[in-house]
Amino acid sequence: MIKVAVWGTGMMGQGLLRYLLDRPKDVELVGVIDRHPEKHGLTVGEVVGSDCDIPVTADHDSVLAKRPDVMCILTASNLHEISDQVEPSVRAGANVLCIAETLSYPWASDPAWAERFDALAKEHGVSILGTGVNPGFVLDALVVMWSSACLRVDRIEAQRINDLSPFGPTVMISQGVGATVEEFERGVADGSIVGHIGFPESIHLIARALGWTIDEVVETREPIVSTVERSTPHVHVALGNVCGCRHIGKGYSNGELKIELVHPQQIHPEMEGVVTGDYIRIVGDPNVNMVNSPEMPGGKGTYASTGNYIPLIGAAPAGILTVVDMPLPRFWAPSV
Amino acid sequence: MIKVAVWGTGMMGQGLLRYLLDRPKDVELVGVIDRHPEKHGLTVGEVVGSDCDIPVTADHDSVLAKRPDVMCILTASNLHEISDQVEPSVRAGANVLCIAETLSYPWASDPAWAERFDALAKEHGVSILGTGVNPGFVLDALVVMWSSACLRVDRIEAQRINDLSPFGPTVMISQGVGATVEEFERGVADGSIVGHIGFPESIHLIARALGWTIDEVVETREPIVSTVERSTPHVHVALGNVCGCRHIGKGYSNGELKIELVHPQQIHPEMEGVVTGDYIRIVGDPNVNMVNSPEMPGGKGTYASTGNYIPLIGAAPAGILTVVDMPLPRFWAPSV
Repeated sequence: MIKVAVWGTGMMGQGLLRYLLDRPKDVELVGVIDRHPEKHGLTVGEVVGSDCDIPVTADHDSVLAKRPDVMCILTASNLHEISDQVEPSVRAGANVLCIAETLSYPWASDPAWAERFDALAKEHGVSILGTGVNPGFVLDALVVMWSSACLRVDRIEAQRINDLSPFGPTVMISQGVGATVEEFERGVADGSIVGHIGFPESIHLIARALGWTIDEVVETREPIVSTVERSTPHVHVALGNVCGCRHIGKGYSNGELKIELVHPQQIHPEMEGVVTGDYIRIVGDPNVNMVNSPEMPGGKGTYASTGNYIPLIGAAPAGILTVVDMPLPRFWAPSV
Repeated sequence: MIKVAVWGTGMMGQGLLRYLLDRPKDVELVGVIDRHPEKHGLTVGEVVGSDCDIPVTADHDSVLAKRPDVMCILTASNLHEISDQVEPSVRAGANVLCIAETLSYPWASDPAWAERFDALAKEHGVSILGTGVNPGFVLDALVVMWSSACLRVDRIEAQRINDLSPFGPTVMISQGVGATVEEFERGVADGSIVGHIGFPESIHLIARALGWTIDEVVETREPIVSTVERSTPHVHVALGNVCGCRHIGKGYSNGELKIELVHPQQIHPEMEGVVTGDYIRIVGDPNVNMVNSPEMPGGKGTYASTGNYIPLIGAAPAGILTVVDMPLPRFWAPSV
C-alpha cells in the first residue's frame, strides 16, 4: 500500500481521486486538501460521486501529519502558485507529483525556484516530479522514446491538434476564440491571450534527454481565422473571426532550428477538415512519422500519467526530477 | 569514453559499428569479434567502409582482455546460440547488450537459461539486456509507454506491417514467400516456415510492465495469398500463391484475450493497397490509436536502439534486465 494525499479537487484532482479509488488494494488515500471554502465539509465521495468518506479539508498540516508517501498536487500552472503546496509536502517527507506545466522543467521559467526546491527535496530525501500529458508526454517524453530507435536525429517537429469545443468561457477568452483578429493581436500583446503553457519546458526536456544545447526558445501565437461560422454553447465565431490560437514554440541551437512544437487549439476543427491528433516527426535516420488520432485527451491523460508515476516515484533519487530522468512509464494495473 | 566491443559483423554488426564510429569522443572501440574465417585479417574499416584499423578477430579472449565496459552481441536469435558469447563477456566483467530476439524476455523460451545467466551476471556485477526494434520497441516498450497515459487498459492490439521485398532468398524461404498454400502449411508444420521470432517475448514484456499475468500465449502463422502476381529479384509469386506470412501472437489471462500482436510480412504490400507501418491500439480509457507509417525499419531500428542503450546500461542494476526495467530510452547524440 502506498500512502497518497491529493491537493486540489478541481476537474484534474477529481479525475485523479477516481483513479486512486479504483486501486483500493494499492493506495491508501490519507487525505485530500482544497483551499476553496465551498469544498469544506464535503467528503471525497460527495465530490467525485463514490462512497469515500474522507473529508476535504483546507488544513494541509493535518493531512501531512498522516505521513503520505506521495503528495499529488493538482492546483495551478505556475511555480509561484505551487510553492506553498510543494514546500510543506517536501518538509513532511512526501514525494511530490504535480501537474503544474512549468514544473515539468522548472529551470526554464525560474531557475532560482528550481535550485531552491531541488536543494530542499535533497535535504529531505524526497523527489519532486512535474507530470501531465502536455508537457510531460506527447510533445516531449514520447518524442524522446521514439528517438531511441534512431541512428541520427537532425530535427524534431511535433504537433498536437485538439478541439476546444467542450471547454467553458474562461478557456475561450484565454485562447482568443470569438475575437476579431485585431482583438486577438491585442490580447497576445497584453498577455490576456496565453495559448499553451509548456513549450519552453517540452523543448528543454527533449534537449536534456538528447544532450542538445538549446540556447534560444521563440514562441509565437497566431490567430486561427475561420472561413466558416462556428459556435459552441459559450462562444460564437463569425466568418473571418478567430476560432482558436495556433501556438508555436521553436528551440534553436546556435541559430539552427532543432525542435518545433505546434499546438493549434480551436473550436470545431472538423468544420474545415482539420483532423485532431498527436503528430511526431523526427527528421533523421530513420525518420519517424507518427500519428495518434484523435489526440490523447488532455484531462484524462494528465491525471492518468500522474497516477501512473505514483509507484515509480518511491524508488527515484531525491531532488527535482523530470519525466526523462524516470524509468519507462507504464499503466499501473490495480491489484485484484 | 565508454569502452565498447562488438561481437558479430553481419549486417546488424556493421550497422552498429558505423554508429559507434560516429561517436569518436564517446566510444572507445576496443575490439571486434567474428567467428567467420572470411572476416579474419580484415579491419573494421574494410568491413564497414571507413578508416578504422581495428582487426576483426575470432579470439574473443584477446578482446575481453581489454576490459570493455559493454559487449554488444549481434550474432543470432536463440539463447543456446548466444551462450558461448554472453558467458565469457559476463565473466570478463562486461555489461551485455544483445539483439537475440529471445533475450528480450529469456524466461519465455528457456527459464533455466535465464536463471543461470541472471545469477552469473549478478555474481559478476554486470547487466544483460536484450535490445532491438521488435521485440524491444515497437510491439512492447512503445505500447507500455503509451499505456502510461491511460486510466484503464482493457486490451492491447498492435500490428507491424512491413515489406519483405528488399530481403534475400533465405528470408523468402523462412517466410514461405513463393510457396503454394499447401507448401506453406507443410512448412509451418515442419518448422521450416518460422515467421517472426519474438511474440511470446513482447507479450511477456508488456505483461511484466503492466503487472498482468499472462498464462497462455498462442501463435498462428497464416499464408498471405496474393490476388496479383508479385516478384522480387529473388522470388516470383504466382496469382493464388503465398506472398508472405501473417504471424499472430495472442496472450491470454484466465482465458481472456489481453494482448494481440500481428505481424504480416510480405513482398510488395502496396500492390494490394496495404500500407506498411507500426500500429498500436489500446482499448481502455482513453483509447490509443497510433500509426507510424512507414514502419520503423527493422535493421536500422535494431542497431540504433542497441547503441542508444550503451550510455544507460552502465548505471543499471546487475542481472538480466528487460527494456521495461530500464530508464526512458533516448537517442545518444555524439559529443562534438
